[in-house]
Amino acid sequence: MENRYRDLVSSIRAIPDYPKPGIVFRDITTLLGDPRAFRRAVDDLVHPYAGTKIDKIAGIEARGFILGGAVAHQLSAGFVPIRKKGKLPHDTVRIAYSLEYGVDEMEMHRDAITPGEKVIVVDDLIATGGTAEAACKLLTQMGADIVAACFVIDLPELGGRKKLEDMGIDVRTLVSFEGH
Amino acid sequence: MENRYRDLVSSIRAIPDYPKPGIVFRDITTLLGDPRAFRRAVDDLVHPYAGTKIDKIAGIEARGFILGGAVAHQLSAGFVPIRKKGKLPHDTVRIAYSLEYGVDEMEMHRDAITPGEKVIVVDDLIATGGTAEAACKLLTQMGADIVAACFVIDLPELGGRKKLEDMGIDVRTLVSFEGH
Repeated sequence: MENRYRDLVSSIRAIPDYPKPGIVFRDITTLLGDPRAFRRAVDDLVHPYAGTKIDKIAGIEARGFILGGAVAHQLSAGFVPIRKKGKLPHDTVRIAYSLEYGVDEMEMHRDAITPGEKVIVVDDLIATGGTAEAACKLLTQMGADIVAACFVIDLPELGGRKKLEDMGIDVRTLVSFEGH
Repeated sequence: MENRYRDLVSSIRAIPDYPKPGIVFRDITTLLGDPRAFRRAVDDLVHPYAGTKIDKIAGIEARGFILGGAVAHQLSAGFVPIRKKGKLPHDTVRIAYSLEYGVDEMEMHRDAITPGEKVIVVDDLIATGGTAEAACKLLTQMGADIVAACFVIDLPELGGRKKLEDMGIDVRTLVSFEGH
């Protein structure tokens, strides 16, 4: 994996001690700003699903909107925003999820998914998988058939991928980094 | 304009009295969720620039990320997020802008634009144009050559389009609604 996507790895900026000492933040904005890296990440991320009819891409706010919008365009699918609470204007369904300290809630429009629709969840990175797990639960609750959850970056030591796979979800990532 | 994009108009949900009495909110999530409407909006929005080399799409948080990500993919351009303050991990430049009550600030990474790069600004809707104007000023300050500012929805009575055109910016919109 590392070899094939070496150019993507080098387009991701490492920011030491952000947001706090000891953490290396993986900044995807440098990948997004590089036209070749951005296009390759989007196209390769969903390449295995190009032959499958995908109805909706569910993007997780906020960086998942950028990649998810591009993926939806690539697959000619619709796009469903999964947002922090209080941001969507119509009737919503909501789910709580755990953060490092305390809990937060995310929501989607109640009519965003028709039961049985095939959905791919998209975000930039999977770490502990708390938000992705909540998003998948919310989508499943509304009748979505989750075909896959796709992330450009995996931080496998934080266990998010395993958490989703234990839910029976096909997880696809392009590059992985050791540590947090 | 209304005729050509009648299908787009009908895919946008009107929410009366949101976020407050007397305002009709134009909800673009129903357009985004409709694969045909989403693809047509993205492709038609930037159709006039398909023959121009565009380096970067600058998307305004948060709905501008969804459309901007798709537009960047369509034009094989890079993507630059313009975010609410405090969200970007690296060195930023910041600009204040007026809201209905008080002011807020938005920012972008200082190295997101190389001077002379051709940029298209993307958001879902232009109303008073306060955020779009601030985004254009920030980009110009960093040396961007703004080719156009593109919005799916125009609320012309609120004057945003005129504000940008007075700055010399080419504004492109697909559908317009009367009133606020």
